[in-house]
Amino acid sequence: MTGRRPSLAVVGATGAIGGVMLQILSQHADVWGEVRLIASPRTAGAELVVRGEATEVLALSEDVFDGVDVALFLVPDEVSAQWAPVAAAGGAVVVDDSAAFRLDDDVPLVVPEINPHAVRRRPRGIVASPNCTTLSLIVAVGALHAEFGLRELIVSSYQAVSGEGHDGVAALREQLALVAGTELGTRPGDVRRALGDGDKSPFAAPVALNVVPWAGTDAGGGWSSEELAIREECRKVLGMPDLKVTATCVYVPVVATHSMSVHARFENEVDVAKAHEVLATAPGVVLFDSPAAGDFPTPADVVGTDPTWVGRVRQSMDDPHAVEMFVCGDNLRKGAALNVAQIAESVAWEFTRT
Amino acid sequence: MTGRRPSLAVVGATGAIGGVMLQILSQHADVWGEVRLIASPRTAGAELVVRGEATEVLALSEDVFDGVDVALFLVPDEVSAQWAPVAAAGGAVVVDDSAAFRLDDDVPLVVPEINPHAVRRRPRGIVASPNCTTLSLIVAVGALHAEFGLRELIVSSYQAVSGEGHDGVAALREQLALVAGTELGTRPGDVRRALGDGDKSPFAAPVALNVVPWAGTDAGGGWSSEELAIREECRKVLGMPDLKVTATCVYVPVVATHSMSVHARFENEVDVAKAHEVLATAPGVVLFDSPAAGDFPTPADVVGTDPTWVGRVRQSMDDPHAVEMFVCGDNLRKGAALNVAQIAESVAWEFTRT
Repeated sequence: MTGRRPSLAVVGATGAIGGVMLQILSQHADVWGEVRLIASPRTAGAELVVRGEATEVLALSEDVFDGVDVALFLVPDEVSAQWAPVAAAGGAVVVDDSAAFRLDDDVPLVVPEINPHAVRRRPRGIVASPNCTTLSLIVAVGALHAEFGLRELIVSSYQAVSGEGHDGVAALREQLALVAGTELGTRPGDVRRALGDGDKSPFAAPVALNVVPWAGTDAGGGWSSEELAIREECRKVLGMPDLKVTATCVYVPVVATHSMSVHARFENEVDVAKAHEVLATAPGVVLFDSPAAGDFPTPADVVGTDPTWVGRVRQSMDDPHAVEMFVCGDNLRKGAALNVAQIAESVAWEFTRT
Repeated sequence: MTGRRPSLAVVGATGAIGGVMLQILSQHADVWGEVRLIASPRTAGAELVVRGEATEVLALSEDVFDGVDVALFLVPDEVSAQWAPVAAAGGAVVVDDSAAFRLDDDVPLVVPEINPHAVRRRPRGIVASPNCTTLSLIVAVGALHAEFGLRELIVSSYQAVSGEGHDGVAALREQLALVAGTELGTRPGDVRRALGDGDKSPFAAPVALNVVPWAGTDAGGGWSSEELAIREECRKVLGMPDLKVTATCVYVPVVATHSMSVHARFENEVDVAKAHEVLATAPGVVLFDSPAAGDFPTPADVVGTDPTWVGRVRQSMDDPHAVEMFVCGDNLRKGAALNVAQIAESVAWEFTRT
């Protein structure tokens, strides 16, 4: 490696995704020069450990990006919308995990296993990382697309509560404490009554002993914003603006790792043995598919790991061009921090080669 | 009402579905004459309350069916396979909730809202009730089929642990007690390790803080028996032997009430306003569909109620012949005991009219 090691800013260092990012930076400790941790004034001043060193968290401001080569934004949409252009104007390459720029034509939406070269054209100085639900399936689907030619996706999600950050995890933990050891879950509304009105949950219904078929905001036509995000982001990452994509997004009482039941239809007929071979050799994918022996991915086993895990791969009985599969990916790692880190590392090479 | 009130036997009175059946019998107290409660010798001798009266549970034997007009079987497949023909040979009409006879050409598979007349032709003296997952969606789908002409179903389930009876509920309760109040669910295998090896769970993976994409046994080609059951039972109940049906069955940490994400494609174009009208007026269906206002069905609200609840109804953006929807039904009520009771009551009329 020649040239200098670029400097990095992590905006949102104190959040759920920020915490995972610090682990990843510690594991990939040789990529970056200075690492600056940044958060809102509310949580700034704390000390966090990264690469084995206690590091003070700085408050978000215009000056804080001085001398920063690459800035990672792991913050809510409105914070990115305001501050990412500030960091970019100061000369940093921004890698943004929020939804603020994902569908902007002048911002590439990058999954390094699928469209790595898209990172080079970034007229606004900003690169976006997809939604965690898109990321939980796109690596596996992209590998099959390259072999068989994707035509349609029909997906149902089993989303972890950390999709709503620390607040989502706290809501599940608090609700579980109230329902564990009870006989709740057998009478209409008993869980809802036990949780009471003081509940500060970000979910639209109880999430302990329940599933919640609504994620995000009202996007019209009965669709949630999360469902349309999967559609538009899959199209953009795969470069297929007319791809058919239907999603139903449902939260489940799982801390971390999103799962998806996927019906994928292709231009070519799909042989399951060949699909297995493609998935077994695809970068970033683990094939774990011997269900009668208990080998299928579940969040409890996948959480904390980097790859997308795929199992339950089977030929549709009604359509030789379609397969069903069950996919799990850690929404805080590949679904967020890891993909952002991968994008940032691909940008870092630009600095090390100068 | 003329004629006599028929006598009833409830086989499996001490099980999870049996318990719900006793509630239903108490609510519909005027239909039956004598009600005889029957269970395996292991649990026989206990007293259970039905229609306000403590009633001793009798041990399953050939003689116990003497004088019984209608016998409900709420027991595992192998018990039904052995004993239902015994009860039928003694003259009782058997209504069986197990899988033992569901796909037998000489046994009707009945959902009273959809194919009530099928109950009359029963050459073996046995009428079968579908699987709880089939029942959680078929009433809503059947209503739309009558209007639009069904062609294909692609469904993903969010199944409650009581699909595995008392053992399933006990496993979830025990696992929740171990994980509530912990920070588990964030590291690979941490939930699995916390549950230990002594786990007597009927599930193939942890079910607390997890989802388990495997239900039933290995049916070949990567499919689970539950997934093929949905396919074959939907075809039989709807009288459409070539209907395209693809299912992915997944257990979630919910006590009771199965949910399904449903992609349904029809012969005719589907107008969502018309679909709403059909569902709002269909017997046995509640339309609950204003998601931006928080109105969508969830297990916590649906559990303990009789109807199939439908929400998240929306037109496919890629196919004017398809709709998406989210359906919830209590797997112990309409999914089991209630459908059996409805079938039995339709048989009871044959006795009251003689």
